[in-house]
Amino acid sequence: MKVAVFGAGNQDLYVRHLNLPEKFGGEPPFGGSRMAMEFAEAGHDVILAEPNKNILEDEHWKIVEDTGVKVTDNDVEAASNAEIAILFTPFGKKTFEIAKNIISHLPDGGIISNTCTVSPVVLYYVLERELRRERQDIGIASLHPAAVPGTPYHGHYVIGGRATSGLELASEEQIQKCVELAESCGKTAYVVPADVSSTVADMGSLVTAITLSGVLDYYYVGTQIIKAPIEMVEKQILMTLQTVASLVESSGVDGMLKAINPELLVKSATSMHLLKEQEILDAALNMLSNLDDDVMKWIEKGEIKHTDLVAAQALTKELKNLMGGTAAEGTIRRCMRKMFE
Amino acid sequence: MKVAVFGAGNQDLYVRHLNLPEKFGGEPPFGGSRMAMEFAEAGHDVILAEPNKNILEDEHWKIVEDTGVKVTDNDVEAASNAEIAILFTPFGKKTFEIAKNIISHLPDGGIISNTCTVSPVVLYYVLERELRRERQDIGIASLHPAAVPGTPYHGHYVIGGRATSGLELASEEQIQKCVELAESCGKTAYVVPADVSSTVADMGSLVTAITLSGVLDYYYVGTQIIKAPIEMVEKQILMTLQTVASLVESSGVDGMLKAINPELLVKSATSMHLLKEQEILDAALNMLSNLDDDVMKWIEKGEIKHTDLVAAQALTKELKNLMGGTAAEGTIRRCMRKMFE
Repeated sequence: MKVAVFGAGNQDLYVRHLNLPEKFGGEPPFGGSRMAMEFAEAGHDVILAEPNKNILEDEHWKIVEDTGVKVTDNDVEAASNAEIAILFTPFGKKTFEIAKNIISHLPDGGIISNTCTVSPVVLYYVLERELRRERQDIGIASLHPAAVPGTPYHGHYVIGGRATSGLELASEEQIQKCVELAESCGKTAYVVPADVSSTVADMGSLVTAITLSGVLDYYYVGTQIIKAPIEMVEKQILMTLQTVASLVESSGVDGMLKAINPELLVKSATSMHLLKEQEILDAALNMLSNLDDDVMKWIEKGEIKHTDLVAAQALTKELKNLMGGTAAEGTIRRCMRKMFE
Repeated sequence: MKVAVFGAGNQDLYVRHLNLPEKFGGEPPFGGSRMAMEFAEAGHDVILAEPNKNILEDEHWKIVEDTGVKVTDNDVEAASNAEIAILFTPFGKKTFEIAKNIISHLPDGGIISNTCTVSPVVLYYVLERELRRERQDIGIASLHPAAVPGTPYHGHYVIGGRATSGLELASEEQIQKCVELAESCGKTAYVVPADVSSTVADMGSLVTAITLSGVLDYYYVGTQIIKAPIEMVEKQILMTLQTVASLVESSGVDGMLKAINPELLVKSATSMHLLKEQEILDAALNMLSNLDDDVMKWIEKGEIKHTDLVAAQALTKELKNLMGGTAAEGTIRRCMRKMFE
């Protein structure tokens, strides 16, 4: 397979800053350059585009090239033969620019794959004009390492499938091609809805994991111990998570914490300790009971801004009924971008 | 102060089912009857309305009455002198019926206080016609025990203040009166925005507490260790929580789990273990890695339904711009009720 990787990876962050070799194991180069190496070692024809030579040390460039990876500083050159073009590029606008720059150069049926720096949904909207007109053949499918490539934790890729909204960003064959590429270098391929991939694979997966453990703990206590109806338990989960999300959206984390009041929350949630073993709740209560003075002052200074606490899916449905599907689509899309961008 | 409590509390749930005397300590009667006793012991003039004599044993009724609480099976009688009418009544429609039944009988400036069985926002909307026309003097202010009254964990009341949406359900004096009642029986009074009170005080506070600990852990790791911009970190928090909330809304907990895939999530979130001590993340990963077969089968059978993942506050703003404030208000209100009801 002909593969292009854009962006070698910020070794300064991985090695000096995060000290990954000691914390997680593995050796530099980490990131995009390591992905390129692994693809080459699996027998693919790989080119790595990186305009900044200084991002890797010379000895690391040598390691990369020794695996057979071709290195270039020219994005268009890298794109011109790429069946799969993988963007291991910076957060935000830079990635949009590169994507817009390369799309017309990709071969027929090419795939643009995002990693952790952009949501596939946003990438789709950024490229929508091209994707709907000149390049209907191109697909967007995440090839998200969901870990730092080069560390032992990177044993998998997250590949974006059909979105929960029904949006199809890539054809079934294009998604399958990404699965094959991942598996060819011994990684597990997980296909998840494209619009859910960031939640399960980005930095914020830390929040997702802890939140899910809370949802499961409460679901068990609520339905099995308190024996409340499932519908009521699910409503409580929706209410709490939607409220926290919307308060963060309107007022930031400090404003949200001010509205919710951790001291009070500890007292309320203690009464939900109804099993002998609720390890996660114990840990959470322990943390929330021992916030240091700086954090308490930061919360105190938080500002609770205007918030309309609504169930988001109920609102998108109302909007479609009010405006009709097509007119509502534009509005929904803008609010989708606000969330993922 | 003249106080009426509606509903003595389901002792069968507290004692037989949840075994609270052993788990938490304290003695029956628990719940509304205990609140009434504590108010009476603090010197207030208290009446307890309970149509079902069998909900308490005879000896417990005696304990209640020995503190000076007057007991009646007539809601209207209880309401007729109540400066504060506290609804320790069943979930759902039953509480709406009682509230609608008593409102016209309350004295001038009376307060209706919800506990855990209804959101003050929903109660407001249910009573809105009366509150806007005949009884503009009545206020709605939670007096939510946020614990089971009668257990040692009940040292506080959650009182609903001005909502984050700006809605004022009660006057400042009415809110202050609730604070005074709480403090008169030695409880800490927490005034929180009325539309946030359920999230911090209901059963779901278990989810809120664990979620908040995850938000704080990630906020620290994201801004201090990875040194990502605050804005990016807050966006990730919004995205993850909004996604989980909306998937639960559209597809239930099982559908949400199917979309997110706990096995994959464990792999992703492990790479966010960047500090020596991340006790909550450890506990969450441990739980999510050891889901038993029944849970895995339940998730497997989950169905991912159509979901439009949008930032909810961005959407309410768009709606107001599109329709104008007044027209949007009705829609927002319906979606608020869908969340809290």
